Amino acid sequence: MSVAEIIDARTVEDHVMALASHGAFGETGVWRTVYSPEWSAAQDLVASWCAELGLEVSRDAVGNIWGRLEGTEGGPSIVAGSHVDSQTPGGRYDGALGVVAAVLAVQALKERYGPPRRTMEVVSLCEEESSRFRARFWGSRAIVGGIEPHEPDALFDDSGISIAEAMRSVGLDPARIPEAARADIDSFLELHIEQGPILEDAGLPVGLVRAITGLRHTSIELVGRSDHAGARPMASRLDPMAGAAEVISGAVGDALRMGPPAVTTIGKMAVEPNLTSTVPDRVTFTIDARHPDPEPLALLYRSHQTLISSVAERRGLEANTRILLDFPPCVCDPDLVRLLEAAAGELGIPAMRMHSGAGHDSQQMAARSKVGMVFVRSIGGRSHTPAEYTTADDAAKGIQVLATTMHELAY
Amino acid sequence: MSVAEIIDARTVEDHVMALASHGAFGETGVWRTVYSPEWSAAQDLVASWCAELGLEVSRDAVGNIWGRLEGTEGGPSIVAGSHVDSQTPGGRYDGALGVVAAVLAVQALKERYGPPRRTMEVVSLCEEESSRFRARFWGSRAIVGGIEPHEPDALFDDSGISIAEAMRSVGLDPARIPEAARADIDSFLELHIEQGPILEDAGLPVGLVRAITGLRHTSIELVGRSDHAGARPMASRLDPMAGAAEVISGAVGDALRMGPPAVTTIGKMAVEPNLTSTVPDRVTFTIDARHPDPEPLALLYRSHQTLISSVAERRGLEANTRILLDFPPCVCDPDLVRLLEAAAGELGIPAMRMHSGAGHDSQQMAARSKVGMVFVRSIGGRSHTPAEYTTADDAAKGIQVLATTMHELAY
Repeated sequence: MSVAEIIDARTVEDHVMALASHGAFGETGVWRTVYSPEWSAAQDLVASWCAELGLEVSRDAVGNIWGRLEGTEGGPSIVAGSHVDSQTPGGRYDGALGVVAAVLAVQALKERYGPPRRTMEVVSLCEEESSRFRARFWGSRAIVGGIEPHEPDALFDDSGISIAEAMRSVGLDPARIPEAARADIDSFLELHIEQGPILEDAGLPVGLVRAITGLRHTSIELVGRSDHAGARPMASRLDPMAGAAEVISGAVGDALRMGPPAVTTIGKMAVEPNLTSTVPDRVTFTIDARHPDPEPLALLYRSHQTLISSVAERRGLEANTRILLDFPPCVCDPDLVRLLEAAAGELGIPAMRMHSGAGHDSQQMAARSKVGMVFVRSIGGRSHTPAEYTTADDAAKGIQVLATTMHELAY
Repeated sequence: MSVAEIIDARTVEDHVMALASHGAFGETGVWRTVYSPEWSAAQDLVASWCAELGLEVSRDAVGNIWGRLEGTEGGPSIVAGSHVDSQTPGGRYDGALGVVAAVLAVQALKERYGPPRRTMEVVSLCEEESSRFRARFWGSRAIVGGIEPHEPDALFDDSGISIAEAMRSVGLDPARIPEAARADIDSFLELHIEQGPILEDAGLPVGLVRAITGLRHTSIELVGRSDHAGARPMASRLDPMAGAAEVISGAVGDALRMGPPAVTTIGKMAVEPNLTSTVPDRVTFTIDARHPDPEPLALLYRSHQTLISSVAERRGLEANTRILLDFPPCVCDPDLVRLLEAAAGELGIPAMRMHSGAGHDSQQMAARSKVGMVFVRSIGGRSHTPAEYTTADDAAKGIQVLATTMHELAY
């Protein structure tokens, strides 16, 4: 049997469902936050799969599970994987499918070709979603040595537990986090659901990611003057709500005019004092702006900033902006993209190059390795919800592309 | 001494400060909600002032304080007053100044002219602000028989106390509310701070209200579809935040284009799920729209409704609108407006006709009486804040106009 034959839809489905049983939420959802009992059970299951495959299994200092198949030539590893934690609730596929993919790809390669020339590893990353702690990319940041020493005692979940305490509750010592760092990873390959509608709209099962979007989260506070809704004429108001509406329409318009893949989202707002009959004195909202290419990204940011300044100045409002998050675009390794593309071509799987509009562990891994990503079609473009769905057929096709590429790299 | 000489700034100031000592909040504020101990103390003070004047003092079934000076000819009364409750916190003048005005006007008239031909009454209304219960105009509604039988047990404050319980705590029996109704009030005259900047901008101490604004509060819920902020392209979003921004800008624009005195305010908003990286699926906000004249008011409402429908339809959003509050404009009695104007002219007090953009007890009283209102200048147009301020000089001028008009009516 060929690698593509070994990786069939039924096997994929069985693995996804087995993993989804840990932290199952409702009919189709998953609620599996880092260092919870459900999370531990899921990581144990991945470890047992790796052990059954005859891989050398280890758990690193933050709880990432590694399964290692030593290469005959040694040297830096070819690693595949993704994360095992979920949104609250999330679906069965976000992260988990990439872990399943890595296991099945290595399994198929080992079964078909035996020991590789270069070391291959499976990794099930502990945390990506920031759904319990604001620990974004905890697993991959540990691997690239990107966790700051103060963080374990500074990040808390909603019940006041620090991530350090949560680590200790599953037998991990926060003081040892630096030991999770790796400098011997050549390439990191991540399969992930697309989480958007682009593949579905194009009628394709698989996408090959050329770049992961850069993104900036900005908090904008517009301060005006609270006034009586009846007694203060329109002309002399300092109305931050009218200003916010103008900025929001303008920022959404900036992204629309720039065209795809530029996106700008205003998802969060707070109004003070938030009373029907009172002109607000303060409106605070966020702008999430993204583009995978540095130049248009910088242009998008500038457009938004200019807009905020000019609206505030014209309306006599005080504007305070604060950058909450700022990730530069991450370019996937062009050679890996070409290899992935060639693999899809060989397998006769229709695929397209695309960007990722969402952030991924690969962004972090790129600090120390070449990275490549395979996307599989999301039905309805849904994600971060129990309604998230990818067919086992599409998933199998993506895994076949992943395995074929790993074969090219490791054998 | 003339009535105008009797009503001097010093006397006004003393009365305002005495009333403000009950429920004093910070340096210049007042926190005096209906049926609280501070409120009872304030009403007791008004009752004692009335008693000292030799008026016949009574407390009606909802706790309004009345001071009656019987006219030699009897017949329906000429009543002056306002409310004694405050915002949380509010200032010293909103409501309270109208109560002080009524006391000082009747005092000056009695002192200067003795017993009136027609009965004059002072009223200190129990509740207008809805700052403890959503009981808007509780005092004046009781007087016009406008409180529904279910209300006393259906209105609760933030600590879960019903207005019926609160009434009982100050010795009032909710079952007797209908007894507060009066059918023998000929004219109700209310002096109030303007709460806006129109008089200040015009450089005038006093305004004569020709109409109280009509107003409608509408809650608008726009429902779209939640999507990942990075993975969902702009063109296929159903973004209720972008829709809300467009409606808000458009509604504010409707009022601006119509020109003064049209006003439209968006003061309240809630976003779901309210996350930075997620296109919201639901944005709910309020529109407060006002105009004192029925035709432009109807036009303003129609413009807003058309806007909401067209934005929702074009953007594929579901729009659910709900009217929360709907007060028609209240026209002050033209004869009373002319009398007030003539009084200001006689006294040499510069004044202008204007509308009230805020709601007042007079709106309710108009159901059974002629109503007239005197506005006095608000410094900076501020109100519903401890920063609210009206000079004792301006207040005295307004009270002189009130007293002169009452003389015309009652003697």
